[in-house]
Amino acid sequence: VNFIELIGRKRDGGRFEDDEIEWMIGEYSADRIPDYQMSSMLMAVFLNGLDGRELATWTDAMLHSGDVLDFSHIPEPKIDKHSTGGVGDKVSIPLAPMVAACGIAIPMMSGRGLGHTGGTLDKLETIPGFTTEFDARQFSHLLEKHGLVMAGQSESLVPADRRMYGLRDVTGTVPSIPLISSSIMSKKLAEGLDGLVLDVKVGSGAFKRELRDARELAETMVGVGKAHGVTTVALITDMSQPLGHEVGNANEIRESIEVLKGGGPPDLVEVVLRIGAEMLTLGGLADDETSATAMLREAVTSGAALEKFAEVIAAQHGDPSVLDDRTLLPDAPDSFEVTAERSGVVKRADAFDLGVAAVRLGAGRAIKTDTIDPGVGLTVHSKVGDTVEAGDVLTTLHHRDGRGLDDAERLARRAYVIGGGPASREPLVHEEVR
Amino acid sequence: VNFIELIGRKRDGGRFEDDEIEWMIGEYSADRIPDYQMSSMLMAVFLNGLDGRELATWTDAMLHSGDVLDFSHIPEPKIDKHSTGGVGDKVSIPLAPMVAACGIAIPMMSGRGLGHTGGTLDKLETIPGFTTEFDARQFSHLLEKHGLVMAGQSESLVPADRRMYGLRDVTGTVPSIPLISSSIMSKKLAEGLDGLVLDVKVGSGAFKRELRDARELAETMVGVGKAHGVTTVALITDMSQPLGHEVGNANEIRESIEVLKGGGPPDLVEVVLRIGAEMLTLGGLADDETSATAMLREAVTSGAALEKFAEVIAAQHGDPSVLDDRTLLPDAPDSFEVTAERSGVVKRADAFDLGVAAVRLGAGRAIKTDTIDPGVGLTVHSKVGDTVEAGDVLTTLHHRDGRGLDDAERLARRAYVIGGGPASREPLVHEEVR
Repeated sequence: VNFIELIGRKRDGGRFEDDEIEWMIGEYSADRIPDYQMSSMLMAVFLNGLDGRELATWTDAMLHSGDVLDFSHIPEPKIDKHSTGGVGDKVSIPLAPMVAACGIAIPMMSGRGLGHTGGTLDKLETIPGFTTEFDARQFSHLLEKHGLVMAGQSESLVPADRRMYGLRDVTGTVPSIPLISSSIMSKKLAEGLDGLVLDVKVGSGAFKRELRDARELAETMVGVGKAHGVTTVALITDMSQPLGHEVGNANEIRESIEVLKGGGPPDLVEVVLRIGAEMLTLGGLADDETSATAMLREAVTSGAALEKFAEVIAAQHGDPSVLDDRTLLPDAPDSFEVTAERSGVVKRADAFDLGVAAVRLGAGRAIKTDTIDPGVGLTVHSKVGDTVEAGDVLTTLHHRDGRGLDDAERLARRAYVIGGGPASREPLVHEEVR
Repeated sequence: VNFIELIGRKRDGGRFEDDEIEWMIGEYSADRIPDYQMSSMLMAVFLNGLDGRELATWTDAMLHSGDVLDFSHIPEPKIDKHSTGGVGDKVSIPLAPMVAACGIAIPMMSGRGLGHTGGTLDKLETIPGFTTEFDARQFSHLLEKHGLVMAGQSESLVPADRRMYGLRDVTGTVPSIPLISSSIMSKKLAEGLDGLVLDVKVGSGAFKRELRDARELAETMVGVGKAHGVTTVALITDMSQPLGHEVGNANEIRESIEVLKGGGPPDLVEVVLRIGAEMLTLGGLADDETSATAMLREAVTSGAALEKFAEVIAAQHGDPSVLDDRTLLPDAPDSFEVTAERSGVVKRADAFDLGVAAVRLGAGRAIKTDTIDPGVGLTVHSKVGDTVEAGDVLTTLHHRDGRGLDDAERLARRAYVIGGGPASREPLVHEEVR
């Protein structure tokens, strides 16, 4: 096989055989295909696509570029969830202890925030002492003992994706459905799962703004999971406005703790319960959504979910007293209120603009090497459908010494549209893809 | 401007502004854009194209990556020709002295053979002592003194193309009409011409096998020349079978000398006269094709063309006595005759197969670093429309110690189709594009 011929084939709209894909991913992983050839291939794949079979083989070849975890010695069903990323999307944090308290083992590997979307690791690390880096033995030991690990991606998992993603990032080949699907799914499938629930966000704060595109992404990833023999379910959930009220890092931990204590904003709670119910059902611990939801509510009411979170925080070297004392979490020293300029109904509270506002305040990263400020962020008081009076607080900007405040205020004002008559509210869960 | 954004723009089918193209070609020439980014851009350009304005600007930016020659001190009109490459295409060799003898100054920069097509430099260098490397001062001096230089591409002309072509060669981005057009035209326009005649070959031995594609290439290049203010004319000529009888290097020089002496195969002579007539007309030395053709014929009859060739050979350190003594040119020691297996009319004498047969014998290069054997090649006796008897010689393979002979014989046999009834012969000049 000749890589230049393979580039030409995809360029001309052709398809690859399994052994050709395995060969090229293997050679690239072994550093025998230079980046200047792979980037040309990636653009050809971007523009001409991969069919289902090609994508399954591509993902499998990526997956086998490194270690593949095996937790078959752990008797509980191993189920993880993955979100394509959003603003205020702290779902994993209350969800994982709730689901783990019900008896699912969750080998959760998460990422950091980039651009307008936050990252689970950044949020968890605002808990004093909380550690997210473990080697394979430690990771397996934590999972076995606690039924839940919330860690960063291991370096030894899917090294081909690390290199390829770095190349895609600088060659205009990121937003491709097959390339994104293989990147996400190869990492998730390397976790040795029995089942996977995908939270595919749709709307201005998501990677896919249009339902049609989100559906294609969801269907593609579910297809890859199925081809790999891992039952995969995707929920397409709304990201036209932030999820919950808090956008930032420590403040999202506070809101997550509220959910584990039986409170929290209804939209966040609903998404947590829907995804949790899918995880319990996939793991065979509940027969249907109704009974699964009841189990999750019971885990909260009984305190088992909060206790599981305390256990995991302690196991990962964090201080569980944050669960009772909010002041142990970092906070922003200053705040600024963005108020409504007119009375009416909130028609839009744009997730993208509010996400970028949080980044400007220091809660996120514009580029990978930026450091984040764990205390700053937004509290989004008014959401779509709320009735507001002129002068009401729409969003509070939690800032440090005015850093990024002007930009954030401008973005927060732009995010809101207030008008007359009822607002058309997006459904929270648009579709399920099985 | 951000190069990744520009890649994304072309990937999504957008277009570039003039200053964006100038910036990117400039940065690439200055080594500030890495190859792994440029290859992704080139694939995006390959698949989504460049419009006329983008292509003109792209070509101009390439052109200005190096020296641009200026022969305005030479009073004669400066006209060159360029062929997209073919098998047995020795047109430039008899053409240039004929046209120069009529008063056109030709700053001819040619290339080497690659793949199944031959190269003018390789052919000229079979003349003992003949040199094709000159610096800019020597080149200008030779042009001024003799009205003709037949040299290699100067290193200082269009360095961006050298680097970009090298990258395209290994990233599956060669056969793109805009990229080929800008590569060819930037080099030709850097020669400081008043006019340019393009010989766009079409057929199995050409880069474009279909007339529609050849026409698109011709129209694109003529458009670039026009946008640059250099009158450019393209003839689309046939390359379904080799041009003339000889395919190789020294043997093509012998056939060229025959043309300069008033003989030579009629198809070769016709293409030489057609292109030469365009050059004389473009240069304002003739009013129409009829008078231009008469001037060219007179240059041959009078001996002026042959004398001009002798003058140029001597000026370029070659031995002009080759014009009278064919034995001074290299020759293959051995020959093998491929004969007709049946009687009938030649329906096909495939240029591609015969071109590859010549490469296998050693007349060409499979890869750039191969060295050629100047003496070997083919004599194509039978061409499309000829009536042959079983046992007649179709093609003689001139080989050295049997090198590549088996392959060449197989290819030469495959090249021929002999059948009953009249053959449909392609016109020699399919179209003109002005």
